[in-house]
Amino acid sequence: MADVMVFRTCDEHDAWLREQSDLPAGFRVGSATFRFVAEEVQRETEMRLSLLVLDEPSEAFAAMFTQNAFCGDAIHVGRERLAYDSLGAVVVNNKIANVAAPGGREAAESICSAVGAALGFDASQVLPSSTGVIGWCLPVNAMTAAIPHAVEHLQSQSILPMARAIMTTDLYPKVRRRDLEGGSIVGIAKGAGMVEPNLATMLVFITTDLDIDRDAMRRALKRAVNGSFNAISIDTDQSTSDTVVLVSSRRGASISEDAFTEALCDVCRELAVDVVRNGEGVHHVMRVRVEGAPDHTIARAVGKSVVNSPLWQCAVAGNDPNVGRLIMAVGKCLEQNNAWFAPEACSVWLGNEVVFEEGRSRLDAEKEKRLVRYLKEAELYESGAPDAQGMFHPPINFPAHARCVDIVIDLGGGNVACTVWGGDRTHEYISENADYRS
Amino acid sequence: MADVMVFRTCDEHDAWLREQSDLPAGFRVGSATFRFVAEEVQRETEMRLSLLVLDEPSEAFAAMFTQNAFCGDAIHVGRERLAYDSLGAVVVNNKIANVAAPGGREAAESICSAVGAALGFDASQVLPSSTGVIGWCLPVNAMTAAIPHAVEHLQSQSILPMARAIMTTDLYPKVRRRDLEGGSIVGIAKGAGMVEPNLATMLVFITTDLDIDRDAMRRALKRAVNGSFNAISIDTDQSTSDTVVLVSSRRGASISEDAFTEALCDVCRELAVDVVRNGEGVHHVMRVRVEGAPDHTIARAVGKSVVNSPLWQCAVAGNDPNVGRLIMAVGKCLEQNNAWFAPEACSVWLGNEVVFEEGRSRLDAEKEKRLVRYLKEAELYESGAPDAQGMFHPPINFPAHARCVDIVIDLGGGNVACTVWGGDRTHEYISENADYRS
Repeated sequence: MADVMVFRTCDEHDAWLREQSDLPAGFRVGSATFRFVAEEVQRETEMRLSLLVLDEPSEAFAAMFTQNAFCGDAIHVGRERLAYDSLGAVVVNNKIANVAAPGGREAAESICSAVGAALGFDASQVLPSSTGVIGWCLPVNAMTAAIPHAVEHLQSQSILPMARAIMTTDLYPKVRRRDLEGGSIVGIAKGAGMVEPNLATMLVFITTDLDIDRDAMRRALKRAVNGSFNAISIDTDQSTSDTVVLVSSRRGASISEDAFTEALCDVCRELAVDVVRNGEGVHHVMRVRVEGAPDHTIARAVGKSVVNSPLWQCAVAGNDPNVGRLIMAVGKCLEQNNAWFAPEACSVWLGNEVVFEEGRSRLDAEKEKRLVRYLKEAELYESGAPDAQGMFHPPINFPAHARCVDIVIDLGGGNVACTVWGGDRTHEYISENADYRS
Repeated sequence: MADVMVFRTCDEHDAWLREQSDLPAGFRVGSATFRFVAEEVQRETEMRLSLLVLDEPSEAFAAMFTQNAFCGDAIHVGRERLAYDSLGAVVVNNKIANVAAPGGREAAESICSAVGAALGFDASQVLPSSTGVIGWCLPVNAMTAAIPHAVEHLQSQSILPMARAIMTTDLYPKVRRRDLEGGSIVGIAKGAGMVEPNLATMLVFITTDLDIDRDAMRRALKRAVNGSFNAISIDTDQSTSDTVVLVSSRRGASISEDAFTEALCDVCRELAVDVVRNGEGVHHVMRVRVEGAPDHTIARAVGKSVVNSPLWQCAVAGNDPNVGRLIMAVGKCLEQNNAWFAPEACSVWLGNEVVFEEGRSRLDAEKEKRLVRYLKEAELYESGAPDAQGMFHPPINFPAHARCVDIVIDLGGGNVACTVWGGDRTHEYISENADYRS
């Protein structure tokens, strides 16, 4: 595991983040924090509004959105923006998702108009993005009043302040980059729960100065999202607000579609795994490689079934190699998908140990001890004692290391493979979500 | 809620259970408890072996099993038993599920032979049933040695001792009955986790003396299971061992298929809800009524999506009416099923309050307070403080009451309706499952 990133302190992680965060040419970011009263519960709370601004509107932009049938109003507006000539800015707020809220559509449009007016863009050149509580109304007046502060504080050095500003239950900001000849791709993500399938409660903003046209960008984004944000799950819950936006200032060198796609796939995959690693309450990241599948649908379904099995998630959380549950999760998925199957052809590995072969478990007391050790080594942190209210809080706010629990499932029934990432299920997840809004 | 069953003490619940537990004519039950060394982990542990015995083998029997592709060897044997002329006994063990274990098929057959020999039946007249850890081998010698004790202690008064003996992580035994003219139906269930879909890690044994033929029984069981055990979920995980067995001694009066089916559906539905109420860590039972669906598949999928949403489960656990997550769970399911949908036609109620209508949330601060109160009233228990190891244990071992959190979802898109039951997600579930085998 020599090549695994290890951070011993929050400062080490911060230093690494700062190295990742130089903005490509042609972009600025700024944000504002303010308090308001959420009218549905008559409670004062805090919101952050962030702006990602291009020096000049660009026609080279792409975006993908949640497939939840009850998606937010920002999503409806964002989808329409794809048909316009150019994009000049993205405005993002946390705290309220603007989903199913009375007047939500008009609220999103008002914010875009106000941002456009402050920047000298048309409202149609501003893409809105909201994350947080579903069902509540955006505080349009308070947001509009905060825009000038965010515009005044726009800066072109680092994307890190924006990566911090868009966080909700995230413990730390997520930034990933690729530097290529003549330009770079720099992306940020927020997202920790309600992550699955087909994007996540996840907002991802990717900036580049590489010169590539709109159609090529949109193809590249689709490929990159499929192998990254669509291949992770924290809790099977699919957000109403997921958004991935990619935009180029085209200030750098031109690049081939293949080279751009490859670099973009890397950035997206690393951000996606960052999201899992920082998933609510995640102590272990699981990386599940499914091989020998008859098709991609089955391969991904088996991987997701494993990372989403509550019983297997709990076992991993407890460093308990209860591999029977892993086998159960494969079996239930095959049945649910009416899949071809022969347990005798299937093999399963946990770490470097084979645990299922020829239709039977391969377990013994020594292997059990090695697997317990393996799980402990892959643990990001142990739970601390709960607070006086019985709530668990993660004792660290940085990713201690980049290790995974590696699971390989060879279905022995084809040539298709895929990789899926997910997390375990812990007390911290329950504490986080039993009273998210207070 | 005047008609809701309420138990203030464990004794009250026990007294009620005893009233339910008289065995129909022609049945006896007995069990034995013994210790053995689980060879895969070299650790001594305890097993209970139970026998349900007919005075004479009966051709009137039915059974349904898990659909998990990696099912246990008892399931393979049980499926074959359906083709035989008659059933004389069921032998049940807890602790080890006999799934994917080397030599599992032979182990199941050996136990059946030994039980048959002790009772004077053929091995083919004995149906095996195992529940517990997946992947471990049954301790055949220790089980065989325990059979004489179970046979000596057979009694024909009460099914309650068997309902207790088959428990694993259940907090209390589950018994339900219907008395009809000339006979009765008495069923028991065990099951608390790995409950979903299409049966559960659930063993259900239903006895009757009502005189009904095999074909009619098998049709009745299929209908009853569909509306009960196939309509619940604790954690989406589908057991490798689920079994429902129904057998008649035919000592009572004959009964029409319709009357029998109706009573059997009642018994199965009550047992299914008992299983949810005693689900691992369940603080709230959710009863989700889906109406206005275009077909049964969509109706059930929407209901399951709600009871299985980790985020909504956590909110309910925290008495937090975060109805945005409820709406999210409907939306993600509609998308996953490529279902017809118009959010504007859909309405959602929590308790007696409408929370979503015409595509928008219907929330205000007063309604919020009423919903918090409603959730608190439906809570079975509050978490106590964790123990020194940070593990949570339920503070009661009986169902305090039979209240549900009622959710109604009218999709406004058809005439089909169904009801689904599930539980919330709590610290007790995590504690139970993070180290189940120790």
